[in-house]
Amino acid sequence: MYANIEPNVPPTLLCSLYGVCAGQFSTYATLKLQTVKSTTVTVKGNTPQWEQDFMFETNRMDTGLVVEVWNKGLLWDKLLGTQWLPLLNIQYSTECGEGEWLSLDAELLVDNGKIVGTRVPTGHSILLEAHFELPYGRPASPLESLCDVLKP
Amino acid sequence: MYANIEPNVPPTLLCSLYGVCAGQFSTYATLKLQTVKSTTVTVKGNTPQWEQDFMFETNRMDTGLVVEVWNKGLLWDKLLGTQWLPLLNIQYSTECGEGEWLSLDAELLVDNGKIVGTRVPTGHSILLEAHFELPYGRPASPLESLCDVLKP
Repeated sequence: MYANIEPNVPPTLLCSLYGVCAGQFSTYATLKLQTVKSTTVTVKGNTPQWEQDFMFETNRMDTGLVVEVWNKGLLWDKLLGTQWLPLLNIQYSTECGEGEWLSLDAELLVDNGKIVGTRVPTGHSILLEAHFELPYGRPASPLESLCDVLKP
Repeated sequence: MYANIEPNVPPTLLCSLYGVCAGQFSTYATLKLQTVKSTTVTVKGNTPQWEQDFMFETNRMDTGLVVEVWNKGLLWDKLLGTQWLPLLNIQYSTECGEGEWLSLDAELLVDNGKIVGTRVPTGHSILLEAHFELPYGRPASPLESLCDVLKP
């Protein structure tokens, strides 16, 4: 079953952003994975719901997803908070979960050139659903693959 | 002459972004000062000219301006490069200068939680003009103030 699988095809990371508790703002969120970034539309209100899905591809499981929420202004956008989600904490799944409320902090914590977390709570939070999907047709593990083969 | 001046009014930092040598891209740039960000429109071509001016207010001269240039994509935006401009390197002036070509690097260098520079050249560069202006009516220094008073 492995024969048709490109060994270098990375798994796909799928993320859904639902909203943020952020007071009366016009807010948008960005998701950054290394040098790649996706941005939501800007939504008004204190419980904005973007309901936008984003997809990333990566093999670098030692990295993480940087979530930022910004208040859109006329002259400047103001950072409402950020959170860091290590890719190793994100599960493989064939379907969307319920997501998780992440508290947003003011600053990224960087150690030796690597992001390791965030600090200084802002009081804002964001509901994020993130899971990995395997490339099409790729078994999740040799065991699952074996199970498929053994299925009646 | 100081009587009408708010002691806490910060100086105004003015920046003009002219363009980037970045190959065939649709690019936009962001300027970040601490938790505040301004973004240009997206411009096509290998020598985009945004010709947009941005303004920031700050008293934190120990910080710096983070310039980022992004290639706009359908699914993701890709970072073309970044540069860090310490505010202490930016001059006070009453008029715009010719700007300076800044080489864009791949990564920010962070030391002890503070950005101290960038590394890994990308081959791209950006022309940025940045100068400080004093708040309206505020003398540049006690000496200049004295000169004004002593003027015939």
